[in-house]
Amino acid sequence: MVKLDFSNVLTELIGSAGIKLSEIEDHAKRAVELIRAKPYRELDFIEIYNQDLKDVKEIGKIGRDYEYFLLLGIGGSALGPKVILEALSPFHNLKKKPKVFIYDNVDPVTLKNILEIVDLKRTLVNVISKSGSTSETLSSFLILWKLIRTRRLDVKDHFVFTTDPEKGNLRAIAEEYGIRTLSIPKNIGGRYSVLTPVGLLLAETIGIPSEEILEGAKDISEKAFEEGFAKNPMAILASSLYLLDFLKGRRILVFLPYCDRLKTLSEWFSQLWAESLGKDGKGTTPYPSLGTTDQHSQLQIWMEGPEDKVILFLTVEKHGVQEEIPEEFYYLEGLRFLGGHTLEELMHTEQLATEMALCMHKKPNLKLSIGEIEPRTIGGIFQFLQVTTAMAGLLYGINPFNQPGVELGKRLTYGAMGKRGFETEADEVKRYLKKERFII
Amino acid sequence: MVKLDFSNVLTELIGSAGIKLSEIEDHAKRAVELIRAKPYRELDFIEIYNQDLKDVKEIGKIGRDYEYFLLLGIGGSALGPKVILEALSPFHNLKKKPKVFIYDNVDPVTLKNILEIVDLKRTLVNVISKSGSTSETLSSFLILWKLIRTRRLDVKDHFVFTTDPEKGNLRAIAEEYGIRTLSIPKNIGGRYSVLTPVGLLLAETIGIPSEEILEGAKDISEKAFEEGFAKNPMAILASSLYLLDFLKGRRILVFLPYCDRLKTLSEWFSQLWAESLGKDGKGTTPYPSLGTTDQHSQLQIWMEGPEDKVILFLTVEKHGVQEEIPEEFYYLEGLRFLGGHTLEELMHTEQLATEMALCMHKKPNLKLSIGEIEPRTIGGIFQFLQVTTAMAGLLYGINPFNQPGVELGKRLTYGAMGKRGFETEADEVKRYLKKERFII
Repeated sequence: MVKLDFSNVLTELIGSAGIKLSEIEDHAKRAVELIRAKPYRELDFIEIYNQDLKDVKEIGKIGRDYEYFLLLGIGGSALGPKVILEALSPFHNLKKKPKVFIYDNVDPVTLKNILEIVDLKRTLVNVISKSGSTSETLSSFLILWKLIRTRRLDVKDHFVFTTDPEKGNLRAIAEEYGIRTLSIPKNIGGRYSVLTPVGLLLAETIGIPSEEILEGAKDISEKAFEEGFAKNPMAILASSLYLLDFLKGRRILVFLPYCDRLKTLSEWFSQLWAESLGKDGKGTTPYPSLGTTDQHSQLQIWMEGPEDKVILFLTVEKHGVQEEIPEEFYYLEGLRFLGGHTLEELMHTEQLATEMALCMHKKPNLKLSIGEIEPRTIGGIFQFLQVTTAMAGLLYGINPFNQPGVELGKRLTYGAMGKRGFETEADEVKRYLKKERFII
Repeated sequence: MVKLDFSNVLTELIGSAGIKLSEIEDHAKRAVELIRAKPYRELDFIEIYNQDLKDVKEIGKIGRDYEYFLLLGIGGSALGPKVILEALSPFHNLKKKPKVFIYDNVDPVTLKNILEIVDLKRTLVNVISKSGSTSETLSSFLILWKLIRTRRLDVKDHFVFTTDPEKGNLRAIAEEYGIRTLSIPKNIGGRYSVLTPVGLLLAETIGIPSEEILEGAKDISEKAFEEGFAKNPMAILASSLYLLDFLKGRRILVFLPYCDRLKTLSEWFSQLWAESLGKDGKGTTPYPSLGTTDQHSQLQIWMEGPEDKVILFLTVEKHGVQEEIPEEFYYLEGLRFLGGHTLEELMHTEQLATEMALCMHKKPNLKLSIGEIEPRTIGGIFQFLQVTTAMAGLLYGINPFNQPGVELGKRLTYGAMGKRGFETEADEVKRYLKKERFII
């Protein structure tokens, strides 16, 4: 269902910039051994397809009766739902209901704009935070909570929490006020959570059967533990990317889907890859991109900039719409060759031409492809990339499920905001603000 | 109007990861000398504020009477207009008219969706291509041209071309059919064109006075040639980034505005920087980011990944909306500290905390700031970043105005699509497609 073409990282095709097939094979074998040993309980995400969808479907059905669906979440709690929305229901808010807003920041102007558009009486607010203590999400939750109560609406009718099954502030509030909740399974962290109620409630609310998304994930999951060269494309991809970094200094991974609906998948993947692998001084930097658009933006630096990139294409075989370019202005040389082709052909041709140009300049690149965009393939590509990322982490010898590097910033924020127990950090902030600055 | 804080790249503050003030000073001096010598005629963009706005204002006024404004363009012809739309009129299509669609790809599904929403009778199509031969833009133009004609609408009422003052297919068609046109000045290339009719027509059409945007650009332009340490922040920024690459191997430049409305500015800047500097094996890779959101996505790899990044913050002093976080659930420790603060405070605090955390880990970072988002500051920040990019190019000793690396892909596309004169490339494509592939 997800195919991988890894020809263009092989020495056979791109010479000394590439890596040997045998090396990839060895590392792929090792990646499978590592994942089979299951060193982290968070690898549970691989079995996530095995999930009771009753609550998600029930609340999703309720959600469909609202005019507006407002999701509050940040990072993994927002990027996955965004992909589901934009990939499976493009231009949603101009065409369908409930209108969906995903508020994933603390920008006051954005919130004001959303609040001007939505009618709270007909709005369902989905607050997503595993820990129940994400400052950004909880801040907007508090604002919405007060607004709903001030208007004398029943909080039970306007909130759904997606959170830890037992702990945290949201769980406590839900119990006190009888708010509907959905659980994010214990061992699943934020960036691996799109196939839990985090992403699936939104799917159901906009009419996408969540079981189809999970079926696609299942197809992939079943291959994750497969040994043997030809059976486990995730192991091949993880190994190729690891080796291109380790042996060839390819430290930037450009993720390049050729399909507008997958633009946010680039952002979701970049979060997954960066936060999973960027630790202990290791990890390649994922770069979110989009074809053909970024051929007019980034291609120059891929072709002639520093030799530090790998391009990972993602193509969609059938876009599902035939839009033919008409044969007009036949007398103008610059237009004639376009007539009679379809936009889909042009899309495919430009991807191929870019791939070829990269090869001719000995730049390693790989290509993923899916047949068409539907719930099943979107579930599949999510799981494919999640498994690949986890495998890469194991090859690097790091824990792909924690994020120790974000703690310091959080503590300093707590200090500056006056949270109890963070007085040392508050002093640190004061000292920093007193330093002499160079500002012009 | 645009302030630069460069304290956190100095050895004085971050130790050996930083650079010496005297080195920055020397290079800034050199950057100004280089730009004063005006080695490229494309440096004309610095005087772009000096421009006759009569046509832009006249056509913009006409545009305001339409229900829909459809912009066809790609790369620089789309990214600049996108910034103007999203920075100066956020949530535009849910609130105002004409509804604006920017089609900057050849994705057939996106075009179909747009065509389902717009009513062509009430649509103005703005086709933007300097050369008049951008395949992607011309393909969608041909489709729209035929649709408008098939519906027996007058092409003169539904098209505006923004193109070269003399040459190209669009110019030829405009003359034949009497289409309204706006000119992109001779010496201004695509990625430096946002302050020409490329961006300004859209501004006027959605009711933003283009002269205010240009006034902001003028304030900056007047500083571009200034000598002296304290007077030319662009020279300081260009030199700092150049030196951090050259001396410290900081090859990824994360552009990080803390403001949702500036998310697309990240993409615009990334195109400008990548295509201008990524050549001769040189150039740093610009990374489009957004705060606070990407603290939950990329911060981990900035803090603990490879030592290859510089973070360039961009903050907005006044967001213009006071949204207070209410003091609810005072008994929950995890929520209490948020109450009473505003979202704007939280935004600023998180930016500060991230900056401090980076410093404490000896990661170089810089900060740009603007007072508030309005036409003037947006014009200013565009010009600030354009001047900085050009100066960096001159320091690298490359031509920041060409893009030779994209030609090969274009030629291969022509070959595959059957354009006359590209038969060699057509053969090359055929040969490539016959090669054995490794696909699983």
